Amino acid sequence: MISRYMKEKLSGGSVIRAMFEAGAKMRKERGDENVFDFSLGNPALELPSEITEAVKRLSDEPGIHAYMPNAGYADVRTAIATDYNRRFDTKLMAEDLVMTVGAAGALNVFLKTVINPGDEIIVPAPYFVEYGFYAENVGAILRVVPTDANFRPDMDALRAAVTSKTKVLITNSPNNPTGVVYTADELSAIAEILTDAPHTVYWISDEPYREIIYDDAVQASIFNYYRNSVVAYSYSKSLSLPGERIGYLAVHPDIDDGDDMRRALVTANRILGFVNAPALFQRLVGMYPGMTCDTTFYKRNRDLLLGVMDRCGFHYTRPEGAFYLFVDAPVPDEAAFCARAMDFGLLMVPSSAFGVPGRVRLAYCVAPDMIRRSEQAFWGLASAYGLAGRQ
Amino acid sequence: MISRYMKEKLSGGSVIRAMFEAGAKMRKERGDENVFDFSLGNPALELPSEITEAVKRLSDEPGIHAYMPNAGYADVRTAIATDYNRRFDTKLMAEDLVMTVGAAGALNVFLKTVINPGDEIIVPAPYFVEYGFYAENVGAILRVVPTDANFRPDMDALRAAVTSKTKVLITNSPNNPTGVVYTADELSAIAEILTDAPHTVYWISDEPYREIIYDDAVQASIFNYYRNSVVAYSYSKSLSLPGERIGYLAVHPDIDDGDDMRRALVTANRILGFVNAPALFQRLVGMYPGMTCDTTFYKRNRDLLLGVMDRCGFHYTRPEGAFYLFVDAPVPDEAAFCARAMDFGLLMVPSSAFGVPGRVRLAYCVAPDMIRRSEQAFWGLASAYGLAGRQ
Repeated sequence: MISRYMKEKLSGGSVIRAMFEAGAKMRKERGDENVFDFSLGNPALELPSEITEAVKRLSDEPGIHAYMPNAGYADVRTAIATDYNRRFDTKLMAEDLVMTVGAAGALNVFLKTVINPGDEIIVPAPYFVEYGFYAENVGAILRVVPTDANFRPDMDALRAAVTSKTKVLITNSPNNPTGVVYTADELSAIAEILTDAPHTVYWISDEPYREIIYDDAVQASIFNYYRNSVVAYSYSKSLSLPGERIGYLAVHPDIDDGDDMRRALVTANRILGFVNAPALFQRLVGMYPGMTCDTTFYKRNRDLLLGVMDRCGFHYTRPEGAFYLFVDAPVPDEAAFCARAMDFGLLMVPSSAFGVPGRVRLAYCVAPDMIRRSEQAFWGLASAYGLAGRQ
Repeated sequence: MISRYMKEKLSGGSVIRAMFEAGAKMRKERGDENVFDFSLGNPALELPSEITEAVKRLSDEPGIHAYMPNAGYADVRTAIATDYNRRFDTKLMAEDLVMTVGAAGALNVFLKTVINPGDEIIVPAPYFVEYGFYAENVGAILRVVPTDANFRPDMDALRAAVTSKTKVLITNSPNNPTGVVYTADELSAIAEILTDAPHTVYWISDEPYREIIYDDAVQASIFNYYRNSVVAYSYSKSLSLPGERIGYLAVHPDIDDGDDMRRALVTANRILGFVNAPALFQRLVGMYPGMTCDTTFYKRNRDLLLGVMDRCGFHYTRPEGAFYLFVDAPVPDEAAFCARAMDFGLLMVPSSAFGVPGRVRLAYCVAPDMIRRSEQAFWGLASAYGLAGRQ
């Protein structure tokens, strides 16, 4: 009786679900302290105290929870645009922004606005698996493009993938699950490919991890490289409030069909049932537009975890941003590897969930102590695969 | 460059937009005190002080803004189910509920779960205009069914509308825009019609105004009349927090295909990009599941406005619930009537936006003083149409 589409969704993609359920069972059987959960991107950091205090103050303001225009509060959008312009040397105005129900809302609103059924959306692999659903929501076809051996964009593959049906490219930098951060040169090369297309291809940069970057990585703005571009942003990670669903969509001031697009985006926000981004948290992010949690927490966690991996003999892609580590499975069947890892109390996500084989994703947005305590488990796992002895 | 669908949406349905824009202009020219805005369902009431205080307390709790299961917090769903069961003598369990981004989220999640493209959705007119978009989001066809002269369900029309293509019926009681509240007998008669269908027809009761009822009206639960039923609820009106987007979807414990459906609803919540209902407000509604604002405020407003209408000679449908008054336009072209009303500083919505001609909707969730001050304007409008003299 449920729809054919949802029936199909229920029968597929149960690997992660099965793992989560097994994880819950594991906790019960072994105790929390013997389970090392690297499976979820749920930040262990608390929000900045300024935000917590502002929640309390704002609660007393009349009308703070009322409807506002579907695009969001104009002053909030102005504050965010101003902050963005200061950081990235751009010229966004309030009307270039729509406040959204997280980055997921932003992506769905944009796709609803531009996609005609049958249009193609290009995405480099590995990619956040939800993109596939968002494409299906609007009748688009997702074309997955390979990246190079280090998961950096493969310009030849990208150029070959752009056809007359291509309407949108989605990139995600810093990347979930690899931690790759695209360089300015890479953005520029991608822009050139899209500019060469005989028709307009819109480029969405999905960047909820924008402020979480390490070492020498620099987050550049696609707005400075390509005109037909939009940014989908979420405060989930930068402010540690993923449960509150607050983000925005920003369009390049000179985007093609801009006047219609700005109106259509606001209409799409309503039509899709999001209606508007949550009111109280709109106010909060508008008050502190550039604020982030202490992201050095993630750098310390990364370094801790890389130490564990190095000592145990695992190979991985060194993350330049975000809070995920993409580790090579020592056998081709990464799902079997994940299942074996559970014998040691280790929970991680097989890379098939991200469109590539042979890896696992570890989320290190966790308590540092758990990373330290997990070393023995990783050592056991490495030994089981004959890795640990190598060092 | 934007999609054909959104292009079409932008070119249509601009009556309300034009009125809003004219309204903003009017305020600027005449001053706020000379504009009487009855166009928006944005509650003038503040939230209960218990909720405001709880916001402050909860803000200090660790992890209060984190991800939770896509269905929402289990304890919150238990609290809501328990309260609902107590009030309506039902047997909901936590797993029968999915916390959603408002009732709009609930409706979209349910339609995504059950609709195959080409399926039909029946809705009695007048109806909340967004239903049409929600149907289109999943490729369904909206079949609008007439109601009787008092906007009560017409059982013959409803029976005639049920075909082999019918998958869903949506009713909205208390009704926006008429204020009609369906009786238990009417629910029972509708249930009989749906039960007679040769296949499963799901019935959605959209009831964000459930707690706002007047006089002798009684809000019954469709769960006690029909098994293949779901309730879409929003706290927007009952707690005066429409900007926060918090609601839920509840399914009948014995609904057809229930196990798959419960899983699919949670998946749909994620797939559509809602991900989960906002975390902090989930906690709040879970702490005070039966709490409402002082809804006698709306009764007093209704009575004030009915007095104004009576004295000015307007005819209307007497609202039994919600906070809208559906007034007969004294000429067939209700849009022209709305435009004329603006000359008197009066903003109201033409009924064509709700699928029926010849009426206007007045939202009376406003400051009582505005209703009092509006009488002179209504008197002027009535005079312009030769009504006021009648009394």
